[in-house]
Amino acid sequence: MPALHLNKQVSSKDSSSLPHVVILGGGFAGLAAGKALAKYPVKITLIDKENHHLFQPLLYQVATAGLSAADIAQPLRHIFSGQSNLTTLMDEVIDFDLNTSKVNLVTQSLYYDYLVVALGVTTGYFGNQSWIRFAPGLKTLDEATELRRRVLTAFERAELAKDSGETSLWLTFVVVGGGPTGVELAGAIAELAQHVMAKDFRHIDSTKAQVHLIEAGPRLLSAFPKSQSTYAYKRLSKMGVKVHLNEPVTNVSADGVTLSQSSISSGTILWAAGVEANSVANNLGDIPRDRAGRLEVNPDLRIPNFENVFVAGDLAKLSDHKGKQVPCLAPAATQMGRHAAKQIIRDIAGRSLQPFIYFDKGNMATIGRSSAVANFRNITINGYFAWLAWLAVHLVFLMGMRNRISVFLNWAWSYLAWRQGARIITKKLIGRSDGPSATSSN
Amino acid sequence: MPALHLNKQVSSKDSSSLPHVVILGGGFAGLAAGKALAKYPVKITLIDKENHHLFQPLLYQVATAGLSAADIAQPLRHIFSGQSNLTTLMDEVIDFDLNTSKVNLVTQSLYYDYLVVALGVTTGYFGNQSWIRFAPGLKTLDEATELRRRVLTAFERAELAKDSGETSLWLTFVVVGGGPTGVELAGAIAELAQHVMAKDFRHIDSTKAQVHLIEAGPRLLSAFPKSQSTYAYKRLSKMGVKVHLNEPVTNVSADGVTLSQSSISSGTILWAAGVEANSVANNLGDIPRDRAGRLEVNPDLRIPNFENVFVAGDLAKLSDHKGKQVPCLAPAATQMGRHAAKQIIRDIAGRSLQPFIYFDKGNMATIGRSSAVANFRNITINGYFAWLAWLAVHLVFLMGMRNRISVFLNWAWSYLAWRQGARIITKKLIGRSDGPSATSSN
Repeated sequence: MPALHLNKQVSSKDSSSLPHVVILGGGFAGLAAGKALAKYPVKITLIDKENHHLFQPLLYQVATAGLSAADIAQPLRHIFSGQSNLTTLMDEVIDFDLNTSKVNLVTQSLYYDYLVVALGVTTGYFGNQSWIRFAPGLKTLDEATELRRRVLTAFERAELAKDSGETSLWLTFVVVGGGPTGVELAGAIAELAQHVMAKDFRHIDSTKAQVHLIEAGPRLLSAFPKSQSTYAYKRLSKMGVKVHLNEPVTNVSADGVTLSQSSISSGTILWAAGVEANSVANNLGDIPRDRAGRLEVNPDLRIPNFENVFVAGDLAKLSDHKGKQVPCLAPAATQMGRHAAKQIIRDIAGRSLQPFIYFDKGNMATIGRSSAVANFRNITINGYFAWLAWLAVHLVFLMGMRNRISVFLNWAWSYLAWRQGARIITKKLIGRSDGPSATSSN
Repeated sequence: MPALHLNKQVSSKDSSSLPHVVILGGGFAGLAAGKALAKYPVKITLIDKENHHLFQPLLYQVATAGLSAADIAQPLRHIFSGQSNLTTLMDEVIDFDLNTSKVNLVTQSLYYDYLVVALGVTTGYFGNQSWIRFAPGLKTLDEATELRRRVLTAFERAELAKDSGETSLWLTFVVVGGGPTGVELAGAIAELAQHVMAKDFRHIDSTKAQVHLIEAGPRLLSAFPKSQSTYAYKRLSKMGVKVHLNEPVTNVSADGVTLSQSSISSGTILWAAGVEANSVANNLGDIPRDRAGRLEVNPDLRIPNFENVFVAGDLAKLSDHKGKQVPCLAPAATQMGRHAAKQIIRDIAGRSLQPFIYFDKGNMATIGRSSAVANFRNITINGYFAWLAWLAVHLVFLMGMRNRISVFLNWAWSYLAWRQGARIITKKLIGRSDGPSATSSN
């Protein structure tokens, strides 16, 4: 095993004689890798720039005031508090020196015997990075809080508006991207306006709010069967969402979006249209990438040329044994993280590595109250039972009993009372635009 | 009634023929004033720069990761959604023109017949405003989130520290101010370090953290009977908090505080030592003030010279009929807000105004798990039963059933599992210092 042998020399700088596994990222992949190594004689260091693991599938509910940030996050060092072979560091990766098996963090450099890169993806703007100011994405808790601030503040500004043009600007919401996140956001904003806020304003009628969902391709939820795309389209239309298909966004400004054939004036634009590899991954050397910058890994999840470096999660691009792309979903990331961990153990034991085999657990997306789509292999369910299944699956996979109870109660409350529990506007974050006619009053 | 007559002329600019009551501030006083006017033929506008009413007595629990922001806040327009004579505006006061009965907001100017100024107080630094960067206060949700970020990040930095000096800097916490907020913060941080985080770190021992509580005066909780000050001192000492009495802070920097006779190196300083009137109140004209800038109001809560302007809540300074200062407490603010509303109704009806009479509901402060002090007239209780009473009173007065359930469950969880549910670090806010050795990694 040349990789191990080579790196053992390097790691002699480390006091421990156990192989040192460095995991970058505490998302689904990093977490699974760390946990899968719990009972093996290795020394693990897990690094994340946040102090928490985030349950991204429910992030849109934080952005639309249904849940609090703490409900869907769990401190990483708490998750691993009982796993003595793992140390959590809240730090950030600057770059790599793969030849000497070293990763440079802000506060220190670490030598590794094995590296698992699970840094994930961020929101992508297809090269139009300046759009981020006007149309923030939804990948982190801070972004979710920012989206919530924008959505709730828009209604406040509409209430304060001086003329009907301004009112309409602030009562128009644009969601770009017809994947699950875009569909979920559009549905949740429509329900917020139609029901939750309906009685709260005196000057405006929040039920007159317009929600536009923009998709460049020919259908919503393109990863789902066509019948489910159609179902989502119909449900959203019924909820008052105006869905635009085959309309790529050509420009985004503080006052709205320009589409190929029309334009929409809006004070609040949310971006759920693309992903981009974490930019630190550019420092991993000359590896083939797709357009989003995701790394094309070997079937065993290692990168070409370096036998001790694995990539797992959304950052890894590969096709499974049947030639199908492994999707950017939480179950896939978890499986990849676990696979990387297993291969590390095999390599230490001198055994040959195995290719990653993706087990497709199906796919689901919620559209609104009592409405979701779910599929598993050839079975598709739409509507109420899909929604119940969605609720159950997300509760089960959410980490921590306290968070499960809290989320369950928030859902029950919202369902019964038609209210959202987290309609609180908190301050603007650094480096974000405030949209048009920003004042100091938020 | 000259006041009403005078202002009726002005308010003819308003389309409504009902008297227009403008309430500035949605804290306890503003809320009570608005609610007390619910059934009267007046037109009410309530203005707050935040979109929520905040239950400040529990704010320290957000700062120490026990509760989420949304648990102790309630959207103002939701609170008043069923009260059709009240309009909520999320806006900010710039200044007043009392002679024409006008208040200027960021987005518009409003004419009033009656004005209730309930803008409250902010954290005061006794003229050393530059200390705010190093030692933020605790009056808003955003400040609580900032404090939480600092406290949790300090442990992360200690874990990453390169030498024992740095470790000790980050494991030393200073709370300035021995009133209820300071006592509660110091106790909660000590418990976080001693219990909640005890197993989570690999390099540091969080139980070795030092918590210093600094009080300039001769005893803690000076508004309480002496025996309760002594009890709080003993309890905190037992919990490992080092209490410094008779030691005014003479300087605050990024690296610690200087006291009259010593200095403490610390990376995390929290300020709970003083209050200062909301600076907008300076525009209310030539009214006598105390050193904190609070307005000395007439016994009926009106300001001298203007018969249609009331001040209620922490911003109002007055002595009650027995000559005792009305304290800056939630029940006092509520009573004042209600009193101002009643006087407005009396004035409209042509009746004479009455002096404010404070009904003392007692005082309570929590020190830590199973430990609090409470007093009501001549009855004092310390310890477990005071703590149970504290829990019960705060649950009852917290607004909204959803929040009550959530807070109750969080408390039960923390109590049983020795865990805090909201240990999530979110991003730095604008205009705040990051303390020493700030990196991009938080």
